[in-house]
Amino acid sequence: MIKKSYFKTNPDDPKPLSCVSEFIVRFNELDPMSIVWHGNYAVYFEEGRLALGRKFGIGYMDFYNKGVTIPLKQIHFDYFKPLEFAKTYKIETLLYWNEAARLDFEFRIYNQGNDIMTSGYSIQLMIDKDKGVLVNKPDFYEDICKKWRDGKF
Amino acid sequence: MIKKSYFKTNPDDPKPLSCVSEFIVRFNELDPMSIVWHGNYAVYFEEGRLALGRKFGIGYMDFYNKGVTIPLKQIHFDYFKPLEFAKTYKIETLLYWNEAARLDFEFRIYNQGNDIMTSGYSIQLMIDKDKGVLVNKPDFYEDICKKWRDGKF
Amino acid sequence: MIKKSYFKTNPDDPKPLSCVSEFIVRFNELDPMSIVWHGNYAVYFEEGRLALGRKFGIGYMDFYNKGVTIPLKQIHFDYFKPLEFAKTYKIETLLYWNEAARLDFEFRIYNQGNDIMTSGYSIQLMIDKDKGVLVNKPDFYEDICKKWRDGKF
Amino acid sequence: MIKKSYFKTNPDDPKPLSCVSEFIVRFNELDPMSIVWHGNYAVYFEEGRLALGRKFGIGYMDFYNKGVTIPLKQIHFDYFKPLEFAKTYKIETLLYWNEAARLDFEFRIYNQGNDIMTSGYSIQLMIDKDKGVLVNKPDFYEDICKKWRDGKF
Repeated sequence: MIKKSYFKTNPDDPKPLSCVSEFIVRFNELDPMSIVWHGNYAVYFEEGRLALGRKFGIGYMDFYNKGVTIPLKQIHFDYFKPLEFAKTYKIETLLYWNEAARLDFEFRIYNQGNDIMTSGYSIQLMIDKDKGVLVNKPDFYEDICKKWRDGKF
Repeated sequence: MIKKSYFKTNPDDPKPLSCVSEFIVRFNELDPMSIVWHGNYAVYFEEGRLALGRKFGIGYMDFYNKGVTIPLKQIHFDYFKPLEFAKTYKIETLLYWNEAARLDFEFRIYNQGNDIMTSGYSIQLMIDKDKGVLVNKPDFYEDICKKWRDGKF
Repeated sequence: MIKKSYFKTNPDDPKPLSCVSEFIVRFNELDPMSIVWHGNYAVYFEEGRLALGRKFGIGYMDFYNKGVTIPLKQIHFDYFKPLEFAKTYKIETLLYWNEAARLDFEFRIYNQGNDIMTSGYSIQLMIDKDKGVLVNKPDFYEDICKKWRDGKF
Repeated sequence: MIKKSYFKTNPDDPKPLSCVSEFIVRFNELDPMSIVWHGNYAVYFEEGRLALGRKFGIGYMDFYNKGVTIPLKQIHFDYFKPLEFAKTYKIETLLYWNEAARLDFEFRIYNQGNDIMTSGYSIQLMIDKDKGVLVNKPDFYEDICKKWRDGKF
């Protein structure tokens, strides 16, 4: 079990937004050891981010439609046990509270027996149309954050 | 050896433009049989198209800069012998003459002993900014075709 | 609509085995035109083959467990309309009857409005542990084919 | 410029083994922003590891031929500037000294103007045929390490 987060949290922060989704390992994701090639986990983490984005209205397209892109600044993977062909895994995705205009995601992949297989995190910045890094959250995301802080999710 | 083309040719057509380039098989391109996963050959064919595009000034960006995109309409692969990790292969790319606004490419992958490993072809259409299919070649490509027909390549 | 098959069929042949599954376009499958990169369709076709394999007990692992691998000999794609991010598409997979030890698959991708987006086919050979091409179907697959011919599917 | 390593080093440690190689961004590695999709950097880091492996005789196959596989335990990416289509980048790969049976790699991607674009690291363990984690380095790698310590590289 994972006991603590990759991110430093403050006792006053609202709890992370979270989402659990599933994925099935595809044949083309395997390597010659018949396990998932390490680089393909970026796909699963992205599936997690997208699932959480759909759930709370903060997906790539929600930002994009407001003129904001959210490129990755950092991503990190810890591999505990290998993933195998055609098996179904769960990915738990958590979005941690951050006062700044950035997205701090944490990921935990579990097998059907709830063994932790992989964990990791990603950090995304917010970029406007002129390719400038945003200091303040865009309005629509500020509104989401307000509901989040007010415990409305 | 490959004796004839995938494309019907006319005796009066100028000879195909051609280009030979090389690639090395990457680890992530392998499948559990330790051979290249069949879907990854699309990458090698694209490398061939890009190499020929650089040589003759008809790459993706050359079209794009004139407001034209060249999406795939059809692609075909014939697999003869598997490709192996870390080995270097040659890809021969041929662009066949076509009066219409389309690109007919043929590909042949060889090992270092000149055994044919794979062959195939792709067909691309030309699309303008309004997503309409072009009937006539764009001017810059018409100029290239004129030089081609005049034997200047 | 697709009226006829890529494969020549005989009036006496049993009807193709078929299967319909769904997939969602992933972000990493997109290209700079914001449509699925043509090479990634090989993943969707494989998902179709695997879905049909699960349904009828003739998946990659069913063959593999009998000492047989089923590499691709040929694959072909016809692109009609582009696939877009985060949308769900249906893939209809058909396995055509063949007296020989090979697998003739056909694929048709539809959007939610049942427009045909892509079609194609793949041909797989059967290879034993000594890398020899099988002339006769392995016993377990012969049994499946008998049920198929007898109309038991 | 990167001033310090991701790994804690000891003044007595031999200097990292290093290697510089080049790669060209492929079309299929791009995302809808026309920059390399973040997950594809794992391919470039692997190219770096393989280049260093070839230079010093410690590639995947060198381990594999001794019955040892070297799966990833951890990988990390810091993205500074995006990579663009068809451009050539340099990747500097460093292998840091470690007394234990593990491989600590660091990566730095530069453009042609020597701007740092990306950095990161990976950690690999050594696994024997019974899937046990090795405590001691395999003999052939111990020999390499001896030469390394003795300053013979």
